Amino acid sequence: MKHIDTRRTIREYTTQDVSEHLIEKMLQQASRTQTMGNLQLYSVVITRDENNKKLLSPAHFNQPMVTKAPVVMTICADFNRTTVWCENRKAQPGYDNFLSFLNAASDALLFTQTFCNIAEENGLGICFLGTTIYNSRQIIDILKLPKLVMPIATLTIGWPAHQPPLTYRLSTNAFVHSEHYKNYSAQEIDKLYTPIEELPENKHFVEINKTETLAQIFTNIRYTKQANETMSHSLLETLKQQGFL
Amino acid sequence: MKHIDTRRTIREYTTQDVSEHLIEKMLQQASRTQTMGNLQLYSVVITRDENNKKLLSPAHFNQPMVTKAPVVMTICADFNRTTVWCENRKAQPGYDNFLSFLNAASDALLFTQTFCNIAEENGLGICFLGTTIYNSRQIIDILKLPKLVMPIATLTIGWPAHQPPLTYRLSTNAFVHSEHYKNYSAQEIDKLYTPIEELPENKHFVEINKTETLAQIFTNIRYTKQANETMSHSLLETLKQQGFL
Repeated sequence: MKHIDTRRTIREYTTQDVSEHLIEKMLQQASRTQTMGNLQLYSVVITRDENNKKLLSPAHFNQPMVTKAPVVMTICADFNRTTVWCENRKAQPGYDNFLSFLNAASDALLFTQTFCNIAEENGLGICFLGTTIYNSRQIIDILKLPKLVMPIATLTIGWPAHQPPLTYRLSTNAFVHSEHYKNYSAQEIDKLYTPIEELPENKHFVEINKTETLAQIFTNIRYTKQANETMSHSLLETLKQQGFL
Repeated sequence: MKHIDTRRTIREYTTQDVSEHLIEKMLQQASRTQTMGNLQLYSVVITRDENNKKLLSPAHFNQPMVTKAPVVMTICADFNRTTVWCENRKAQPGYDNFLSFLNAASDALLFTQTFCNIAEENGLGICFLGTTIYNSRQIIDILKLPKLVMPIATLTIGWPAHQPPLTYRLSTNAFVHSEHYKNYSAQEIDKLYTPIEELPENKHFVEINKTETLAQIFTNIRYTKQANETMSHSLLETLKQQGFL
């Protein structure tokens, strides 16, 4: 895991393909990740077809990685396969509920991250697309996901064509608490966030976006209350549609 | 990542401590994991105190790892720290909603799994406790988690005192779909699940539990519809209480 210290999100890829054999091998290795009752409550839809990438692209706000990466992978929380197994074995499944969604989503995300760790250690570049849960309904239609399957993460995968600078991280004392959670004073917030606010790239962002603070870029532009509330509503609707609520 | 091929969940630990320095280093490395807008929407509460382990134990159905592991780690979806930052920077946060919960839970789970991979590569043994979301309210009280913080995963961590056999995994064709999701026929279910059902340990489970099929052990004993529905209700209530719904 030496690669972890220098990993960066990769959004540009060479034209070199990523072989089916390598993808298959990494998926098999990632499946060693622990899951609930060893049920492996996830599934993976691999998109290599150019046309299908174009169909998926709007669901990811047309970020260019989706059409330009050789491999796009949608990882889903999946209680369908286990449910079909139960139905074929005189067992009454009871997984059409919110707890089961979160169990399957956890399995899917843990599996996803082991896959990322393995892929990056193999020299591949990955971009994790959080947009998957913003427009999950579109993705469900395109990938033909049945009930009890919910897309939860998307990765674009390819060989790196750029080496962006390492991004900043909070020091561990920002997020680690001993025995009990200790809330943050204004002074502590200053200490933790001033180094981020002082980064030249962030000062530049504030300047070009004409906001007063860096935090306002998040609240007023990138992740606004209104957009979050609208998307929360449609996400809950989609969970109902998929049988999880 | 060579360790991945032979990893197993470890539930018994030697009496040797895991040093603060090593835990700190691994947490720092794991924080290289990608997160939403690089906001690192997670926090970690470390429990080393014997008394606090005893308090946490019932929330995890008294599984002995909680009191016997040198380190217990509760990883939380955390939009509190970011919200406090915004409030101190003339920015109006809008993260008290379901989408923001799932964004933070994703960050927390991805971070958790990189940590697991690093810890296991360092020779440590890990048990991931899915019980965290079953009794999240108790855990919130014990760890004193404020609003917009939700416990999402627990790890017990120590040096392995046993080497259990490798557990079975589905072959990749069970969970990988090309371009579109392909649902499962009764024949495919037979092909995928018969090898699992035929494992001596699973035949033994069916025998001692007096069920007709292995699937019934999951539906009638381990993860019942009634328990899932009851816990779904309390999980949604807890999300409301924490300000995410």
